[in-house]
Amino acid sequence: MMALDGLRILDLTRVLAGPYATMILADLGADVIKVERPGTGDDARSFGPHLHGESAYFMSLNRNKRSMTLNLKSPRGQQVFRELVAQVDVLVENFRPGTLEKLGLGYETLRELNPRLIYAASSGFGRTGPYSRRPAYDAVVQAMGGLMSITGQEGGEPTRVGSSIGDITAGLFTAIGILSALRAREQTGQGQVVDVAMLDCQVAILENALARYNVTGEIPRPQGNRHPSIVPFEPFETQDGQLMVAAGNDALWRRLCEALERPDLASDPRFKTNPLRNTHYAELRPILAEIFRGQTTAAWQALLEPAGIPVSPINNVAQVMQHPQVLAREMLVELAHPTAGQMTLPGIPVKLSETPGALRSAAPTLGQHTEELLGELLGYTPEQVAALHAEGAL
Amino acid sequence: MMALDGLRILDLTRVLAGPYATMILADLGADVIKVERPGTGDDARSFGPHLHGESAYFMSLNRNKRSMTLNLKSPRGQQVFRELVAQVDVLVENFRPGTLEKLGLGYETLRELNPRLIYAASSGFGRTGPYSRRPAYDAVVQAMGGLMSITGQEGGEPTRVGSSIGDITAGLFTAIGILSALRAREQTGQGQVVDVAMLDCQVAILENALARYNVTGEIPRPQGNRHPSIVPFEPFETQDGQLMVAAGNDALWRRLCEALERPDLASDPRFKTNPLRNTHYAELRPILAEIFRGQTTAAWQALLEPAGIPVSPINNVAQVMQHPQVLAREMLVELAHPTAGQMTLPGIPVKLSETPGALRSAAPTLGQHTEELLGELLGYTPEQVAALHAEGAL
Repeated sequence: MMALDGLRILDLTRVLAGPYATMILADLGADVIKVERPGTGDDARSFGPHLHGESAYFMSLNRNKRSMTLNLKSPRGQQVFRELVAQVDVLVENFRPGTLEKLGLGYETLRELNPRLIYAASSGFGRTGPYSRRPAYDAVVQAMGGLMSITGQEGGEPTRVGSSIGDITAGLFTAIGILSALRAREQTGQGQVVDVAMLDCQVAILENALARYNVTGEIPRPQGNRHPSIVPFEPFETQDGQLMVAAGNDALWRRLCEALERPDLASDPRFKTNPLRNTHYAELRPILAEIFRGQTTAAWQALLEPAGIPVSPINNVAQVMQHPQVLAREMLVELAHPTAGQMTLPGIPVKLSETPGALRSAAPTLGQHTEELLGELLGYTPEQVAALHAEGAL
Repeated sequence: MMALDGLRILDLTRVLAGPYATMILADLGADVIKVERPGTGDDARSFGPHLHGESAYFMSLNRNKRSMTLNLKSPRGQQVFRELVAQVDVLVENFRPGTLEKLGLGYETLRELNPRLIYAASSGFGRTGPYSRRPAYDAVVQAMGGLMSITGQEGGEPTRVGSSIGDITAGLFTAIGILSALRAREQTGQGQVVDVAMLDCQVAILENALARYNVTGEIPRPQGNRHPSIVPFEPFETQDGQLMVAAGNDALWRRLCEALERPDLASDPRFKTNPLRNTHYAELRPILAEIFRGQTTAAWQALLEPAGIPVSPINNVAQVMQHPQVLAREMLVELAHPTAGQMTLPGIPVKLSETPGALRSAAPTLGQHTEELLGELLGYTPEQVAALHAEGAL
């Protein structure tokens, strides 16, 4: 058994934020029915690189889902859509607000067909407010929401996070909203709208930058890889790379000095406490930099890890994929795709002891399950499905 | 009514990942009982800056919770803890794995007291694997998990994301795990362990870097603020700042050229399609850079936003706090703290139409609700609570 067994989701989402949300739910057992535009499907299907014609990007976000095509602009397609809505718990979409309304398929219409429907909408700016109908991309939202302004080297350019954290956090909050609305439904018997905006999520993850600014009035800037108030807590150059060293408190500092065989640093009155190490940072940093340059990253790891000092090389993606802890946690999973062949995908970070999630199937090809789903959910015969195809509804 | 009304959470978490998870659940209605060490409480209470003695950092993560003190090292404190465990739906902790076991309060013991208990553990590396018991900090996990290796200016240093995205994503996945386990419990009547590791979550958010590497074998590097395959999709210098311009497809490109009154660029055979603009990037970039330098950011916004081009200045935190969409979405909320006074906090990004979350109370002072909670949950009289205090259990 999986935690979300029996949860049926009609998924109109494309590209990233929405598919990320439904992937999390599918990984934990939900039956996610991906409804795609006939012919082209999810835009992400065209994003390179491709493997035997299948987009690696698409495949990494759409495992565990079934795909059917549906033409939401044709009256017959809309009819099928309404029939499907009556059969599901959740509808998820990440169109610009207003798009489904224009097709006569907005929430107010759909709730008439299914009052228990949870309608989850993930968009750039949300369903309300002056920016609601504007287009958004991850880069725009990272710029607008402040995260870029606090990311980057000290004194350097504002920097975009290298993964689409604007989309991903919206996907995570959308999943939380859906699961919360399901819990409310058990009490009320009624569905509702879950409205998640990428921009809102950016504000929600600003964390102490917001708190600091509120109190001090100082505008937070990129501060590089150094902790704003803990020393040492930053990467150091080694003989062959970099090592992140995070001595988060005075006990770890003393343990670090011991492991480095520099008890003189631990007892140096300039460096005894974290506030003192902050004050004397300009003196301490070169001493440590000189020490760390003396050995390889691996040698430092071998020395410092057993001493309980939190350290890490700055791993690249290839190194992450060979990391013993990543492998032990099954955070990389091999899955065979019928066309693309063997794929390595990220595993499931929510580990449940009794009802664990699973990678049950590779991402579907476009419309792979159209006939299966229309038969299973709506009782359509293969002939009826063929007729729908013929009239351009699928 | 709120979505998570009636959900009672015993919260042993400190600093960030755990408190972020329980904040999300508290915002949506859960009754979160924050159990803190007598005397000092959550480490985050000591993190500056402080406002009338209260940590801004702590306050931003612990609104909507109640605080009680409890000495988990004293036998009487442990007894009270066991009594509390019997009264709650969920226990959340973010100790290093093994910590509660050492106190005789591990999951195997607690489930005897409450088989319906959901035991959620958020840690650096998870409850299994060779790194399980190691200490972790956000910076270490960002370094180890690959995100730093893909964040930064092109050709530049790997860069830490400016907010603690390692902790925050673990908090989000923990909230998802708890809500999923609650749904499983409705079927099975049994609780289980939710095990979330910061490192696992880093792998889960690598997104297309992982997919790209899997297919191409090329190790992804920091690529600055430019999109890897879409042009133009990057910030440009203006007269007084920078403007992120994201012309995500050919239609937006033509619209951009029109708005810039440069139809010649739209019809230029070198720039007609996105693949061509990628090929001729070195020619196109200086042309656009020259154009954008000609006006202020605000002037470009006034011109390009109505034309439907996704653009944004790179806002700093002060600008985010005045952004009309952020304000319209109530993503900044004023809340009065009894000691610290008026605080501005991030709002709730999960917007539920029928059972919306709410900021009901400011973060508690240490032990503010000890007597209230012991009376309400366990029927202790004020005299009994005083006796527990006297013997050092609270």
